[in-house]
Amino acid sequence: MSTASPENVQIQLPDGTLAQHPAHATSMDIAMGISEGLARAVIAAEIDGKIVDADRPLGELAEGTAPLAIRLLTSRDREALDVLRHSAAHVMARAVMRLYKGVSLAFGPTTDGGFYYDFDIPQKLSEDDFAKIEAEIKKIIKDKEPFERFALSRDEARKLLDDLKQDLKVEHIDTGLSDQASVSFYRQGEFVDLCRGPHIPDAGKIKAIKLMSVAGSHWKGDVSGRPLQRLYGTAFFDKKELAAYLEQIEEAKRRDHRVLGKQHGLFSINPEVGQGLCLWLPKGARVRVALEDFLRKELLSRGYDPVYSPHIGRVEMYETSGHFPYYRDSQFAPLYGSEVGGMLDAWGQRLQAGTLSKDDEDKLIAAAEVFGVQLKSYKPSSSDDAKREVLHDWQVENERYLLKPMNCPHHCYMFKAQPRSYRQLPLRLFEFGTVYRHEQTGELNGLLRVRGLTQDDAHIFCTADQVEEEFRATIELTKFVLQSVGLNDYRVQLSLRDPDSTKYVGTEAQWDQAEGALRGVLQHSGLDFNEEPGEAAFYGPKADFMIRDCIGRSWQLGTVQLDYNLPERFKLEYNGSDNTTHRPVMIHRAPFGSLERFVGVLIEHFAGAFPMWLSPEQVRVLPLSDKSIEYAVAVAEQLTDAGLKATVDNTGGKVQAKIRNAQLDLVNYMAVVGPKEAEAGHVALRDRIDGDLGSMPIAEAIARLNKEIETREVRQAVKSSDTVSYEG
Amino acid sequence: MSTASPENVQIQLPDGTLAQHPAHATSMDIAMGISEGLARAVIAAEIDGKIVDADRPLGELAEGTAPLAIRLLTSRDREALDVLRHSAAHVMARAVMRLYKGVSLAFGPTTDGGFYYDFDIPQKLSEDDFAKIEAEIKKIIKDKEPFERFALSRDEARKLLDDLKQDLKVEHIDTGLSDQASVSFYRQGEFVDLCRGPHIPDAGKIKAIKLMSVAGSHWKGDVSGRPLQRLYGTAFFDKKELAAYLEQIEEAKRRDHRVLGKQHGLFSINPEVGQGLCLWLPKGARVRVALEDFLRKELLSRGYDPVYSPHIGRVEMYETSGHFPYYRDSQFAPLYGSEVGGMLDAWGQRLQAGTLSKDDEDKLIAAAEVFGVQLKSYKPSSSDDAKREVLHDWQVENERYLLKPMNCPHHCYMFKAQPRSYRQLPLRLFEFGTVYRHEQTGELNGLLRVRGLTQDDAHIFCTADQVEEEFRATIELTKFVLQSVGLNDYRVQLSLRDPDSTKYVGTEAQWDQAEGALRGVLQHSGLDFNEEPGEAAFYGPKADFMIRDCIGRSWQLGTVQLDYNLPERFKLEYNGSDNTTHRPVMIHRAPFGSLERFVGVLIEHFAGAFPMWLSPEQVRVLPLSDKSIEYAVAVAEQLTDAGLKATVDNTGGKVQAKIRNAQLDLVNYMAVVGPKEAEAGHVALRDRIDGDLGSMPIAEAIARLNKEIETREVRQAVKSSDTVSYEG
Repeated sequence: MSTASPENVQIQLPDGTLAQHPAHATSMDIAMGISEGLARAVIAAEIDGKIVDADRPLGELAEGTAPLAIRLLTSRDREALDVLRHSAAHVMARAVMRLYKGVSLAFGPTTDGGFYYDFDIPQKLSEDDFAKIEAEIKKIIKDKEPFERFALSRDEARKLLDDLKQDLKVEHIDTGLSDQASVSFYRQGEFVDLCRGPHIPDAGKIKAIKLMSVAGSHWKGDVSGRPLQRLYGTAFFDKKELAAYLEQIEEAKRRDHRVLGKQHGLFSINPEVGQGLCLWLPKGARVRVALEDFLRKELLSRGYDPVYSPHIGRVEMYETSGHFPYYRDSQFAPLYGSEVGGMLDAWGQRLQAGTLSKDDEDKLIAAAEVFGVQLKSYKPSSSDDAKREVLHDWQVENERYLLKPMNCPHHCYMFKAQPRSYRQLPLRLFEFGTVYRHEQTGELNGLLRVRGLTQDDAHIFCTADQVEEEFRATIELTKFVLQSVGLNDYRVQLSLRDPDSTKYVGTEAQWDQAEGALRGVLQHSGLDFNEEPGEAAFYGPKADFMIRDCIGRSWQLGTVQLDYNLPERFKLEYNGSDNTTHRPVMIHRAPFGSLERFVGVLIEHFAGAFPMWLSPEQVRVLPLSDKSIEYAVAVAEQLTDAGLKATVDNTGGKVQAKIRNAQLDLVNYMAVVGPKEAEAGHVALRDRIDGDLGSMPIAEAIARLNKEIETREVRQAVKSSDTVSYEG
Repeated sequence: MSTASPENVQIQLPDGTLAQHPAHATSMDIAMGISEGLARAVIAAEIDGKIVDADRPLGELAEGTAPLAIRLLTSRDREALDVLRHSAAHVMARAVMRLYKGVSLAFGPTTDGGFYYDFDIPQKLSEDDFAKIEAEIKKIIKDKEPFERFALSRDEARKLLDDLKQDLKVEHIDTGLSDQASVSFYRQGEFVDLCRGPHIPDAGKIKAIKLMSVAGSHWKGDVSGRPLQRLYGTAFFDKKELAAYLEQIEEAKRRDHRVLGKQHGLFSINPEVGQGLCLWLPKGARVRVALEDFLRKELLSRGYDPVYSPHIGRVEMYETSGHFPYYRDSQFAPLYGSEVGGMLDAWGQRLQAGTLSKDDEDKLIAAAEVFGVQLKSYKPSSSDDAKREVLHDWQVENERYLLKPMNCPHHCYMFKAQPRSYRQLPLRLFEFGTVYRHEQTGELNGLLRVRGLTQDDAHIFCTADQVEEEFRATIELTKFVLQSVGLNDYRVQLSLRDPDSTKYVGTEAQWDQAEGALRGVLQHSGLDFNEEPGEAAFYGPKADFMIRDCIGRSWQLGTVQLDYNLPERFKLEYNGSDNTTHRPVMIHRAPFGSLERFVGVLIEHFAGAFPMWLSPEQVRVLPLSDKSIEYAVAVAEQLTDAGLKATVDNTGGKVQAKIRNAQLDLVNYMAVVGPKEAEAGHVALRDRIDGDLGSMPIAEAIARLNKEIETREVRQAVKSSDTVSYEG
């Protein structure tokens, strides 16, 4: 292998080709050497894993003697879009500065869906300004000016920014970048910005750009900092991509489960009850009942045992499990057995800490008397010292509980409730267990991020030898569950341990066996999966199901997690076939994840129009006129007796209006009935998706609908807007 | 009507007969005037509603001019047993004083099942002393000495008790009876006791008496008072009744749900998880699942809507409902959204109360900063006053929650979640809602008294006109539920309002209508019911189902409760057919009461041997030898596929032992399989109660068992001991 010299750099292309280039050569030069078309397409380059400008001299980037691994990025590479959008933020800022006076630039990063720039700007911006700004942006893009990088020492940079009257950038130089000897800038025509880069070769690469919204923000995100205005935008390499993105946003808005949940009476979240706490209204609850019934039946047939546990547990139990105090920031505060307990305990802590005055101490003792706390062992005639002793005893006896953040510790105690033999393993305990976590108010989002969530939780206690088979079975179960609700587009992410073994419990051999077993199962499952080394929890590897919904968004739902830690902490044991005690392995798993999140995703996936087997209102009987109400009620009773969720529209009015309402209410089937139907014992069945199905005997309709339920058929209109279309 | 004179009293017998008697005449004299046999049978008398000695001169009891209503009590009257047992306590005390020196008498009342007497006695009593004491008791009874009442002034009484060296009685005269001018005593031979009475005519009425146990106690129940010994006994008018009572106690012990629950792995309560918090183990959970599935299906077919609510709610919601702070003594203490919240709130209260020093105040502000609480609106540069304002804001925003003591407020918010029309009423919202109450540790009792209980709760929101029909339907539902589990011996207690209308919400007219409707429904239901005026809650009348189990014990289970209060407090409204807003009436109801208590009662009622439809293990397949295990597994799979809860006994060993274990485990059916059965595709079915049912095709066995499940047949062995009998 030849070595690099100061005048030359050695590079290696992704196909392994090695080549030598002058130090001033750029990625663009290399592209040009391959083909002019490629050079035109190049957006940036990845060099030794780092994204850089395509016109960066390679010599600047060489650090050692090894060849530079270079990958040219075009619009087809995922990373290129981020570079484009960062440059688009500069272009937008430039347009704003052309149009408004006294603009102080803050930061302009990219986001998942686009980019933003924060400005301190005297004028209040609104959406009315967007057309003007966008017109200016288009001019800039049309000029196709290049982005030019240059570096300055901190002092030079400070001076330049002072000259540019960019006081926020000056402050950033002084505080955020105080450890940097030199900093980089990008110039594009008259626009100069302190910026790490990288950028696109020239503004002409931006083929589609749109301002999205404007909102208030603060300097460096600190609410006590200077108020700024944040302008959001998005950009693409292609106008069609922008159109698709805008359509996806519109579609997501139409599918917003919070809006649909309210509109269709599925659930309600009321701050008077508590933020993030879901009230499942009848229609949403019917969906949940259907899911729970379905899963319970599946689990029972797959050898699981039902259990129920309380929603609180002693703090000491969570100390044993390690969930407290480690996760206390995301938990509700501990609660006391009694009001008095909490109050006296607070005082008692001060007594122990010696911060309670003699006066307060007497009050505390008096309060304990008044509330009858532990008066059993409190003798009014005893000395002051004895009183204090009594008080201490009381504190020890007064129980503190935690609103349960997870079900595992309770299930561990169920395992411990009886002597266990290898003959009972695997023991699979399941429950729909509601747990509580104190998510930040700003993080809450309808059903998707809540403070009370019901996990379809189970813990499998098994021998090390059974792990592979149990993992396989849980993967199969999750596949079956997802398929049953029509979520067929997903992959599995297998999280493995970090190479640093000190970060994990369990032995290398255990991990090797477990990870190997999991990998083997996934390989044989035929599922799309990827491995993420270092992403495992410290107590075991796990597999997460990452689902794509019908408008392309990703959701993490079902999960399977091995655990070597809790069995150790709770000292779980079983008697093996060798008649000695062994420690079981524990598997946590939840195919839905949580009922709240799962139903939230389903609402958005189906745009509120649930397939028959999950639907809260499967058939609505529509009398042609009030004369047919009696027959309509009789039909609804027959449908109900046959297990269908049926209602009658007795609101009066025209049947066209009733059909329209049923379509809008996303009822799966309508059974229209008039005198003709009554005479024949028929219904005129109408499918929400396919329209009129003609007149048929009631029994035939029942058979047809029940078959759709039994087979858990998932039929969907292509777009949410289709689901409310109808022909009057 | 003739008037009474000082020399005469007028009496009225229960049949209305009026008669005049001399003032010195006694109830016994009146009995004698009717028949000598009646006089021999008389135990005491009820005069104007008060139980008195049969030899009390009637003139002493006449207060006004109205005739004395007299009822003679014999052993057949419920009240007579209490009089007998009180006298038995005296007889026992007399025997103890004959046998031991230095006995100080405390109190000797009756209990539900008998009586006790508390003594201060130098010797430590044990069950070894019972034979000696019982022998002495028999001598006293044989002498048939009468109980003689006499009254003394407090001073005379004090002197007598001093002479008798009864220091505890002296203390009682000085403290407990300090407001009495004169007090009564009862003498029986050498035994004299300060006592309110009444007593039986003579000790010979006690036909059966037995000492039960001895335990420590304290003077007047105060743990800091003088330690005493409590001797428990029971007494009856008949030896057979005593024998039946002792058998009932033995039977209750055999049926103790705490013992059976542990033995059969039904549930576990572990103080490390929390006292009074139930872990439902797989077998108990299967019983609960069966009950929940059964009831959910019934409710759905009866027009109920399922809902789910969280297990916490904001304290303010319970302030609105009135559950807080009114019931705070029986609730878990409120909890804060975050640990930091609780700590800072305690400080904040002191700040508001002005008891926080300037120093502490600064610490509080600093702590709020450190923990990032409400830093949004906190400006470090602002003045001290502004800081305090911020702090106040924070307290307002920091949410306090209550672990829910009942589900009603959540359901009220569900009612409020949508605009309601009369067309939607009655709206019947149901859920299996787990609520938490902080019962005293000493009150906890297995599943029967817990701190976390799952109500089969529903709230019906209806118009005043619908109350009667809804009440009728809930009574019908409760009847159906109880009949389905074989609890057929019960009565309904209808609790009505107190005549004092200031103690109730709602108008007289509302109460009249509601009580009338409830009474009418019960009259037409054919159910045994009684009315209890003054026992209604302040917010509405209610009906409780009082169940007698198979060994004669009473349990309060299902309940229906009208409520005019919560709709008012939560300002619930619906739009009536007249297009104006109205307030609905609310009905709380729970046919089981709670799953915990209901299952606890069922365990005792069935002595752990659940009927097929509730059984956690319906069939166990027993291979004749290991050679038949394969066939046994195949049979079990067929049974499971047919919906039966089936297991295989693969422990090896003899089939006799397997049968014995299955009987002991209370498995309903055994399917014995050997080579003969395998060849024929048969099982040899064995009924836990009736024994061998012979060999039959698997399909026939399945049909038979499933029929027993579908019809919810309740078959029971007569005694719990029968349920484990078997013929090897």
